[in-house]
Amino acid sequence: MKVAIVGATGYGGAELIRILQQHPEVTLQSYHSSSHQGASIVHSYPHFQALSGMELKAIDPAQIAQDADLVFTATPSGVSSELVPAFVKEGVRVIDLSGDFRLKDTQQYEKWYKKNAPEEAILKNSVYGLTEWLDTDVTETQLISNPGCYPTAALLGLAPLVKHQLIDLNSIIIDAKTGVSGAGKNPSAVTHFTEMNDNLKVYKVLEHQHTPEIEQVLAGWNPNTGPVTFGTHLVPMTRGIMTTIYANAPKKLTAAQLSELYHDSYQDNYFVRIREQGTYPSTKEVYGSNFCDVSVTYDERTNRIMIVSVIDNLVKGASGQAVQNMNRMFGIDEKTGLAFAPVFP
Amino acid sequence: MKVAIVGATGYGGAELIRILQQHPEVTLQSYHSSSHQGASIVHSYPHFQALSGMELKAIDPAQIAQDADLVFTATPSGVSSELVPAFVKEGVRVIDLSGDFRLKDTQQYEKWYKKNAPEEAILKNSVYGLTEWLDTDVTETQLISNPGCYPTAALLGLAPLVKHQLIDLNSIIIDAKTGVSGAGKNPSAVTHFTEMNDNLKVYKVLEHQHTPEIEQVLAGWNPNTGPVTFGTHLVPMTRGIMTTIYANAPKKLTAAQLSELYHDSYQDNYFVRIREQGTYPSTKEVYGSNFCDVSVTYDERTNRIMIVSVIDNLVKGASGQAVQNMNRMFGIDEKTGLAFAPVFP
Amino acid sequence: MKVAIVGATGYGGAELIRILQQHPEVTLQSYHSSSHQGASIVHSYPHFQALSGMELKAIDPAQIAQDADLVFTATPSGVSSELVPAFVKEGVRVIDLSGDFRLKDTQQYEKWYKKNAPEEAILKNSVYGLTEWLDTDVTETQLISNPGCYPTAALLGLAPLVKHQLIDLNSIIIDAKTGVSGAGKNPSAVTHFTEMNDNLKVYKVLEHQHTPEIEQVLAGWNPNTGPVTFGTHLVPMTRGIMTTIYANAPKKLTAAQLSELYHDSYQDNYFVRIREQGTYPSTKEVYGSNFCDVSVTYDERTNRIMIVSVIDNLVKGASGQAVQNMNRMFGIDEKTGLAFAPVFP
Amino acid sequence: MKVAIVGATGYGGAELIRILQQHPEVTLQSYHSSSHQGASIVHSYPHFQALSGMELKAIDPAQIAQDADLVFTATPSGVSSELVPAFVKEGVRVIDLSGDFRLKDTQQYEKWYKKNAPEEAILKNSVYGLTEWLDTDVTETQLISNPGCYPTAALLGLAPLVKHQLIDLNSIIIDAKTGVSGAGKNPSAVTHFTEMNDNLKVYKVLEHQHTPEIEQVLAGWNPNTGPVTFGTHLVPMTRGIMTTIYANAPKKLTAAQLSELYHDSYQDNYFVRIREQGTYPSTKEVYGSNFCDVSVTYDERTNRIMIVSVIDNLVKGASGQAVQNMNRMFGIDEKTGLAFAPVFP
Repeated sequence: MKVAIVGATGYGGAELIRILQQHPEVTLQSYHSSSHQGASIVHSYPHFQALSGMELKAIDPAQIAQDADLVFTATPSGVSSELVPAFVKEGVRVIDLSGDFRLKDTQQYEKWYKKNAPEEAILKNSVYGLTEWLDTDVTETQLISNPGCYPTAALLGLAPLVKHQLIDLNSIIIDAKTGVSGAGKNPSAVTHFTEMNDNLKVYKVLEHQHTPEIEQVLAGWNPNTGPVTFGTHLVPMTRGIMTTIYANAPKKLTAAQLSELYHDSYQDNYFVRIREQGTYPSTKEVYGSNFCDVSVTYDERTNRIMIVSVIDNLVKGASGQAVQNMNRMFGIDEKTGLAFAPVFP
Repeated sequence: MKVAIVGATGYGGAELIRILQQHPEVTLQSYHSSSHQGASIVHSYPHFQALSGMELKAIDPAQIAQDADLVFTATPSGVSSELVPAFVKEGVRVIDLSGDFRLKDTQQYEKWYKKNAPEEAILKNSVYGLTEWLDTDVTETQLISNPGCYPTAALLGLAPLVKHQLIDLNSIIIDAKTGVSGAGKNPSAVTHFTEMNDNLKVYKVLEHQHTPEIEQVLAGWNPNTGPVTFGTHLVPMTRGIMTTIYANAPKKLTAAQLSELYHDSYQDNYFVRIREQGTYPSTKEVYGSNFCDVSVTYDERTNRIMIVSVIDNLVKGASGQAVQNMNRMFGIDEKTGLAFAPVFP
Repeated sequence: MKVAIVGATGYGGAELIRILQQHPEVTLQSYHSSSHQGASIVHSYPHFQALSGMELKAIDPAQIAQDADLVFTATPSGVSSELVPAFVKEGVRVIDLSGDFRLKDTQQYEKWYKKNAPEEAILKNSVYGLTEWLDTDVTETQLISNPGCYPTAALLGLAPLVKHQLIDLNSIIIDAKTGVSGAGKNPSAVTHFTEMNDNLKVYKVLEHQHTPEIEQVLAGWNPNTGPVTFGTHLVPMTRGIMTTIYANAPKKLTAAQLSELYHDSYQDNYFVRIREQGTYPSTKEVYGSNFCDVSVTYDERTNRIMIVSVIDNLVKGASGQAVQNMNRMFGIDEKTGLAFAPVFP
Repeated sequence: MKVAIVGATGYGGAELIRILQQHPEVTLQSYHSSSHQGASIVHSYPHFQALSGMELKAIDPAQIAQDADLVFTATPSGVSSELVPAFVKEGVRVIDLSGDFRLKDTQQYEKWYKKNAPEEAILKNSVYGLTEWLDTDVTETQLISNPGCYPTAALLGLAPLVKHQLIDLNSIIIDAKTGVSGAGKNPSAVTHFTEMNDNLKVYKVLEHQHTPEIEQVLAGWNPNTGPVTFGTHLVPMTRGIMTTIYANAPKKLTAAQLSELYHDSYQDNYFVRIREQGTYPSTKEVYGSNFCDVSVTYDERTNRIMIVSVIDNLVKGASGQAVQNMNRMFGIDEKTGLAFAPVFP
């Protein structure tokens, strides 16, 4: 399949190139950027020298739709909502990595994103692409909205319990920690090395736009789910997300029961690895890979459940899952081009 | 006052030296170590060259008690329980930085520390030294047990709410993150640079020995307090602790009310800085200093309270608070020798 | 080809597994370790869960030689010298990643390594595997000695100038900086996170065992080469080596001349990327990949040449180059299984 | 003495506040900034809460000169050249932390800084303040130009050898490595956490503006000194500079001779610590302090000398040395307010 990447100079775009330049079924057709046209991608990312030297082109939906079978829009929220409809109307298939098509409720979108919501008609026909829990066959889907990084880690961690009602649905607290690449390629005071190194920050307290995305999916799985508390922190590392999730148990449980439930729930999902009971993942153990590693336990003293899930925010939390969705859309094995190992140490 | 430091080659001991070599009322009398006798402290810590070149001596309680007005025992848990009684019996005053004299219930100690509890008689006469909330005049106290690093951050964050019953006492969840110096000076696989750098780890899941310490103090403040959930994480930074605390509100509140309560509660405490409402501290903002910075807010959507507190684990979480306690014991201004600024950036 | 990895629990072994589990021509036959027999590799490296779950076996040269076409000995110096002869005598092909078979002069080995030199007969028949500058066809070679990490970076940087005599051969100064993974998997005081983070160290001053390896190769290229000064530093990062090389020019040159020479010298070498004149590589731009990126310039003011070369010490500096050598030994394209992109950011 | 700080919101300014708020002889009179007037310094630097809450004022030289005994201009190069003359003309004493008054040759300034040189008359009367090697009594000096960070480390390392002609004056190569705070408070692509973390960069290759500053001082010590090669690198750490200096020896020497020379040269200088022969400093061992730690050795194999010197770039490399110069200007002990220990670990 021939693939175009729009927004190739951001981290999401660069990670798509890293993955797809090795994908056996993909031809990288063209890169597009609203700036830098005419310059080689190597000018933005010298690490691609010898691997991919294509020039960046302007974003011309008609031309792109003609040349490519699939477009990844790795563009910021507020930009995708304007670009994606043009691609959809040209008839090309699209996977959008922004937050613009994730929330089905446009009022929620406008409240949390503080931007204009996308066109309702296109939004309605988009599919939310949490790959392991897709509730529809996507081989004919035209537009997949790729999940947010935090929601991917949190939802893969919560799914078995919420779906099996083994959790007090009004008690969910998600304490999330991310590496700094989640903030993107643009420098800022918050992400200045000198201010972030050897430092730990809490940010967007109770205001993170991934909150309604998590709640929407949980409510889709179980309409009784209440609002979640979602705390977000910046950790002095480049890649990686860990979500530590706390919730009350509705009844006495054991760690072994929970562990078995998780192993069963994900036994057919290559990219979700349930850890051996009593052991817990660290973010480096999925670095650079498409895995989500999950542990779950139960605390008798407090009757609470604790879940730990980790991903690489740029892979399973963005471009890796986008490629996994692409594989599903085109009816090939979801592992194709994605079964590379984490880079450890 | 003449001060002896026992356990001078650990990080707690080194931080005491850093602070006390500048303290205007203190003469550093002697350093003691179970190893390295006869070697200069500069051999263990080259950064003390020109500042403090004393030789390490053996641990002889009678001699130390004769020469010093105060002994800091910066020794590991399990060692202090054996050493401190000897000092107490010799009549010298002691501030112990280990966990051995913190838990009044020796069964709890043995359960969580998996070591033999210290002598009951001495334990009973020790005072738990969370300086801002000391409930007794310590000018005559012989033994202060210095709080743990995590409990210091968590308890300073929780105190106003627990004391004023503005919190559901059975809903407290503490998600704690520490820099790696909390694990001490001895190398290990977990704290090997290569495995910790650019990585985030969860550890001692539901088994951290600071859990009963937090619960004991909270129960002292309000006997209705239930068990807490306490999650602990290792962050790739050298110093710093952040505790993010979540709890249900017993009634509708506002962030402004909570902020005012905190400002009032700590208005006479120099080392607790309540942040302006709507802003939150990061760990680097207290790096190297004795401050504990705290923010509190309220979430209408979930009716939950969220508290963020940060300290430098080696200063307010260990040696700085120990010096603050020393100042209190000797009846001098608690700020003496401790009012240095954080090192930022 | 069927491959056995001896020393699978070290970082060199783990990196071989990471690379080879994706190599289209390789079957990973067995892992061997002097400890941990019977345990899964996942016990040592949880990041391999779902990717490679083989058990570690004891080191039985006869059995290994029977089952495998090639053995990688990723064992420490002093261990390889004892193990490799056994494999050689069993007739299996070997690539050794230690320093034991790199120095042809056994006195030099014993002086710098302070260990007993390996058997002369086997040493004599081994080939030093700096892949880009192999001076022999290795399709029949039984034993390749894989170069050290520092020598790989330094020699690839120096080769064009030394071979073309465009450098004062008695003026070479190599200031080298490495990430901490070069020190291996065993924790130590030097590599303790707390002491290495936010820190820069110089180490093994004028005593690094890679010094004679660099000198031996340079002398092989040009017998007039004098001893080199080789300074080594530990940088607070996990992977990466940068060598900054200074030398006097024998005559007036221009940066453009040097740049052209380097482009010409490496035009047929996929894994050496000469940077555009006036731009310089950073270590992260080769992170996780088998590339060596090189820049060269000339300073009119001082009549000196400056070369900058970077590699990932665990890939091109160890396991990646070992696989590249394997590809050459077995007569397949050297890029096979190695053309993955750097992980950036 | 009453002190005004101009450019208080930069890192140099903030570090002056950190140091001076504890200085027993100083009253911090006012902070000035070209932006942020009317806002508290705590708005820019929350870590100063409770320590220093003054408002930032506009830069009014006449007013400042009237209110203060000394002005620190911690302003960028190109700004100081315009501001300092106004202060000088008002008669107030000034210590300038920029590069504007360091180079006596205005052509060199304009070549390397690519800015207009400052007024000659004022430049001529300024004193270059490398405190340990001041060649003049500064108790009457009106303007001290504070040295650059790199030159401080390099020159303190080179001084004994150059002054005693124990070095080939045409062979000096300085390989320098700095923490990222040297690049200042403004975010940029180069200093974005995501691109700098776990990375090592070479920058301003052969173009660093500190080159002529080093050469000017060396030539002042010995007019036969040739141009130096000066390589500069960015290390993923916040603070710290290490210069590794290589030079040919003019005759056979021993490490012991060199070590003795260095101990003798600096025996009366509190802030220069010569390390015990055979041991070497790391940057963290001077973190947050005004020390410069130096080691020197000799290599028989190559007949070369190697010097390693480390400083905290924001303290001895900027604000600490500025305070040391202030102490000298006002005739008080140079250690006053500066004898605090490094923060280690």
